[in-house]
Amino acid sequence: MSDAPHIVSHADLQDFIKRGFAASGLSDHDAGKVAQLMSQADLIGQDGHGVFRMSQYIKRLQAGGMNPSPVFKTLEDRAATALVDGDNGLGHLVMQHATELAMKKAETTGVAWVGVRNSNHAGPASLYAMMPLKKDMIGLYVAVASANHMPPWGGTEQLLGTNPIAVALPSGKNPPIVLDMATTVAAYGKVKTAKQRGETMPEGWMIDKLGQALTDPQKSSEGFLLPIGGPKGYGLALIFGILAGTLNGAAFGRNVVDFNADATTKTNTGQFIIALDIKAFADPEVFRAGIDQLWDEMKSSPRLPGVEEIRIPGERMDAIRAERAASGIPIAAALKAELDTLAAALDIRPL
Amino acid sequence: MSDAPHIVSHADLQDFIKRGFAASGLSDHDAGKVAQLMSQADLIGQDGHGVFRMSQYIKRLQAGGMNPSPVFKTLEDRAATALVDGDNGLGHLVMQHATELAMKKAETTGVAWVGVRNSNHAGPASLYAMMPLKKDMIGLYVAVASANHMPPWGGTEQLLGTNPIAVALPSGKNPPIVLDMATTVAAYGKVKTAKQRGETMPEGWMIDKLGQALTDPQKSSEGFLLPIGGPKGYGLALIFGILAGTLNGAAFGRNVVDFNADATTKTNTGQFIIALDIKAFADPEVFRAGIDQLWDEMKSSPRLPGVEEIRIPGERMDAIRAERAASGIPIAAALKAELDTLAAALDIRPL
Repeated sequence: MSDAPHIVSHADLQDFIKRGFAASGLSDHDAGKVAQLMSQADLIGQDGHGVFRMSQYIKRLQAGGMNPSPVFKTLEDRAATALVDGDNGLGHLVMQHATELAMKKAETTGVAWVGVRNSNHAGPASLYAMMPLKKDMIGLYVAVASANHMPPWGGTEQLLGTNPIAVALPSGKNPPIVLDMATTVAAYGKVKTAKQRGETMPEGWMIDKLGQALTDPQKSSEGFLLPIGGPKGYGLALIFGILAGTLNGAAFGRNVVDFNADATTKTNTGQFIIALDIKAFADPEVFRAGIDQLWDEMKSSPRLPGVEEIRIPGERMDAIRAERAASGIPIAAALKAELDTLAAALDIRPL
Repeated sequence: MSDAPHIVSHADLQDFIKRGFAASGLSDHDAGKVAQLMSQADLIGQDGHGVFRMSQYIKRLQAGGMNPSPVFKTLEDRAATALVDGDNGLGHLVMQHATELAMKKAETTGVAWVGVRNSNHAGPASLYAMMPLKKDMIGLYVAVASANHMPPWGGTEQLLGTNPIAVALPSGKNPPIVLDMATTVAAYGKVKTAKQRGETMPEGWMIDKLGQALTDPQKSSEGFLLPIGGPKGYGLALIFGILAGTLNGAAFGRNVVDFNADATTKTNTGQFIIALDIKAFADPEVFRAGIDQLWDEMKSSPRLPGVEEIRIPGERMDAIRAERAASGIPIAAALKAELDTLAAALDIRPL
């Protein structure tokens, strides 16, 4: 088997994902939505959060751990807030619904905050933060991660996840500014990618239970992720986890189900999205011009010795998106083999 | 002069601050509000953000750089949002007004986001995040810091501030969980405190323009603060700065005025507060019980070798508050001397 990555077009990847989910019990409509979002993750370079997760999601659907035909229910409803029950559907479907609801409310109220419970892993955070951009809105998304890989600061029991935050803002002549970050130094998806690629992890990503650096991703189960800024990253993971989990009646802390290890137990994943209407504060044109000015200020400012370029959050993602849209998406050989096996098992045309 | 700190009661400190601001052009009512908030900062152990800043604020009032009798104006108003012009008043007054407005809106809408422009330094972020707690609401506050001390990641021009975030959540039988953090490894107030106390800074707080560690706070003007998590903290500072500054028509980036070096130019400081009504998502009793359970889970979980205690954000602040309420607030000798000079200049009774 060649180790060279398999290059696929975005359209072919999206079609393959749709075939896979349609063959796993989702309606064509829902399979199409999931495929659109999952393939978008690969298109923008979020390799640990796109088709890489497909086998895992389908295994969970087959095992009864996830509902292929969820009916969403709004449990609490105010002018600018809602709490949605995702009926254990794929996180992508739940969060697209929640984000559209938040955008609709924010059109009138200026801002809306929609929380969800009984959701699942939804792929990269930036997908949802970016949705409101098309309505001249800012998106802010937070999730309880789908497994605990971090102890509280100073501890050894993994009670916290990487609990990511993503914020997306429009610019004028530049790409949108998109921050998409785990509250840990590395997201666990990066550990999984390193493991699959046979790479060593840099020091600082993980430590073991004695506090020693852990750099072999094959041993990742023996250690845990480190938070950014020590106690600060721990504090962010805790607060975000409470806002996305506890407040929504979703799992957080010891009752988080490790969806990597357990395909049958309902995860009760919690997430929330804020949609903030720029028009409630400023003329969007003026705002976008302000962002362009900041962009230019940052990019053209003097650099430390040895630094070639100052980057704006989202800039690299946008460059990858453009490159992959033109030249295709690389699928690692091991992942391609896994997807071929999946296609055979589902009796669908392979990628 | 003795180097021992001067111990004062919270009430005496509050009275002194009120006398000082009343003698500097504020109404008795406003001076009382500012004194309440500033002395609260010292009470909770935020030594770099309380009476420590008093001389600086009063210098700015006297120089005409801050308005002693601001009239707040709501420039934009939606059901769940507002943009408030602070009329260049003290940040404490502007932010108390904005937070009360957000709480009032959130009572109906479930969440409210109020941004401000033409504000000023408002002391510790936690003060405003904690205000909504009394209404069973969660507070989330972000500010553009009142001076730039950090370049974009890889750069050397200080275009960004420490841009802090604070979030406060109620618990049941425990203190509230309060995260109050700069997006830099150290807040600049900590550098100022180290400078005044003649202490050395740990490595990792600051670097110089060649990228070398800077540990002497007397040389702080030759270097800059480092963000938490490298590019992640830079991303947070940038995004928070845009949301608190640019979106509100407030200063951010190159047009931020260094209020440490310049007492006359209007700062046009931007901040925002989110008030989120717990009742729009959950029964507050159930939520608080959930927080208590998390608190116990974290506190009782196993620890790394050498770690004595796992801390919850806000726990230490609450312990300091209780201790200082009982035994008084220590005022460093150098600060006490500065406040005596200020009292003499204002012709008020000293602390």
